[in-house]
Amino acid sequence: MADTPPLLKTITIIGPGLIGSSILRRARQTGTLAQKLIAADCQEAVLHRVTALNIADETTTDLIAAAAQSDLVILCIPTGAIRAVAATILPHMKPGSILSDVASVRSSLGPEIHALLPEGVSYIPAHPMAGTEYSGPDAGFATLFEDRWTLLIPPPGTAPEAIALMEAFWHRCGARTRQMTDQYHDQVCAIVSHLPHLLAFTICNTADRLSADLQTDVLEYAASGFRDFTRIAASDPIMWRDIFLTNKDVLLATFKRFEEDAHRMVKAIQEDDSEAIMQNLQRGRHIRRGLMPEPQN
Amino acid sequence: MADTPPLLKTITIIGPGLIGSSILRRARQTGTLAQKLIAADCQEAVLHRVTALNIADETTTDLIAAAAQSDLVILCIPTGAIRAVAATILPHMKPGSILSDVASVRSSLGPEIHALLPEGVSYIPAHPMAGTEYSGPDAGFATLFEDRWTLLIPPPGTAPEAIALMEAFWHRCGARTRQMTDQYHDQVCAIVSHLPHLLAFTICNTADRLSADLQTDVLEYAASGFRDFTRIAASDPIMWRDIFLTNKDVLLATFKRFEEDAHRMVKAIQEDDSEAIMQNLQRGRHIRRGLMPEPQN
Repeated sequence: MADTPPLLKTITIIGPGLIGSSILRRARQTGTLAQKLIAADCQEAVLHRVTALNIADETTTDLIAAAAQSDLVILCIPTGAIRAVAATILPHMKPGSILSDVASVRSSLGPEIHALLPEGVSYIPAHPMAGTEYSGPDAGFATLFEDRWTLLIPPPGTAPEAIALMEAFWHRCGARTRQMTDQYHDQVCAIVSHLPHLLAFTICNTADRLSADLQTDVLEYAASGFRDFTRIAASDPIMWRDIFLTNKDVLLATFKRFEEDAHRMVKAIQEDDSEAIMQNLQRGRHIRRGLMPEPQN
Repeated sequence: MADTPPLLKTITIIGPGLIGSSILRRARQTGTLAQKLIAADCQEAVLHRVTALNIADETTTDLIAAAAQSDLVILCIPTGAIRAVAATILPHMKPGSILSDVASVRSSLGPEIHALLPEGVSYIPAHPMAGTEYSGPDAGFATLFEDRWTLLIPPPGTAPEAIALMEAFWHRCGARTRQMTDQYHDQVCAIVSHLPHLLAFTICNTADRLSADLQTDVLEYAASGFRDFTRIAASDPIMWRDIFLTNKDVLLATFKRFEEDAHRMVKAIQEDDSEAIMQNLQRGRHIRRGLMPEPQN
């Protein structure tokens, strides 16, 4: 790896949290992503952590100045803030440079930001399907994207060489990449990630409404099912609020389907319909088999 | 441990699956649970695996003969089969012996089996809050119960020395124990385990109904949320059918509360009520904090 020249001269990570600081760590560790690493954030405290961790060559609260000198700017900020920050920095970006973000939802972001692009600047969002329930610069690690998918969602008409560069960038982060449209991306993510999070947050809510005694015991005896849910529900609330609001239509349609399926199961239980229950349970296992080899005979 | 004499002379595990074979492995490995280990099952194939794994001194399909010579019989069979098997073996059990089961739901099992007890035989169900999504004799391991709770649910009037013996038994399995009533047990388990499983099975169902293309990609990109759900949904369907049917009333009441909470969240998303969404999300994190220390500052 030491012989591989860096892919880019200067990159700026705006919002060096879990994802952003993981990119910086990866860049630092391999030396193959960029010659110069800039971390930009509105919060001085975040930048102090980045400095203490020594994962950037420069830290700044001046987003425009950082963007102006970069070949690639990646917005690793809450989805709700992307449009405003993009509008602020885009007029100052160099011809031939790329703006990216790691948002978990596309909705109308693609066409909206595409409309703001100066001549010669490309917009190539890239959503890494990786994460933990932790957040902030200390939560990142260089192998976060290893063997995970990063979904590229370039607007129609994006320069193919810019897309190829972004693919190379994420491959060097350890990820596999695939291109898809905004709409398809949001459908996949609604079922793979957004609905599970909605349910996990909700079941924790339900537990929180229990009587104090019962709640204490629920926490005490949390078995695998509930414990997994609470882990999911420990994720950053601001990020998830933005995701839920941005992917509202697709998420609520997916929830509606889920609710219908839940009612089918509830009805089968209510009516002691053993066969219908088994059918529902078997279907769950069927999906799992698509994911993993059978554990045993 | 080698100097600790075995707690009991002879124990029989009826149904040496994940839980039952884990008890046998533990007994084999430590030598402190019983002098003689009998594995009994209706299926020869299961007993052949037990023999091949060398985790019992004797295997038999004659449940009555095995029970008659045992100081402790543990039924590690589906909840729906417990009543019938208990009724079959109880008349042949020795005075001073203990019948137990590891059922995940109590419902009316306690009083029903209590009514069948011959003079001098105790019934002390013990539900270990441990498991994996795998099943069968090969799935067990000796440390399955290590640092996990085992909930003891002795019917009122059970001999205290028999309860103390069962506590000692499970402590030697590595577990912590606590006593509770049938009803309280079922309430705790409905939220801690049964509802999460119902939701996990259902979301896998929903995924299974997607268009073939989308379904392939959902499996391909399965992120943490969905992947955790499918793991839960891979659990033994017969066991879960029985649990859902046996704990029907409590489970459906718990589901109803969950659904109300889900609707509150859905409504907040629908109406772009950012503050209400945040309240729901924060509550989820609140519960999690009760479970685990904060990961970082």
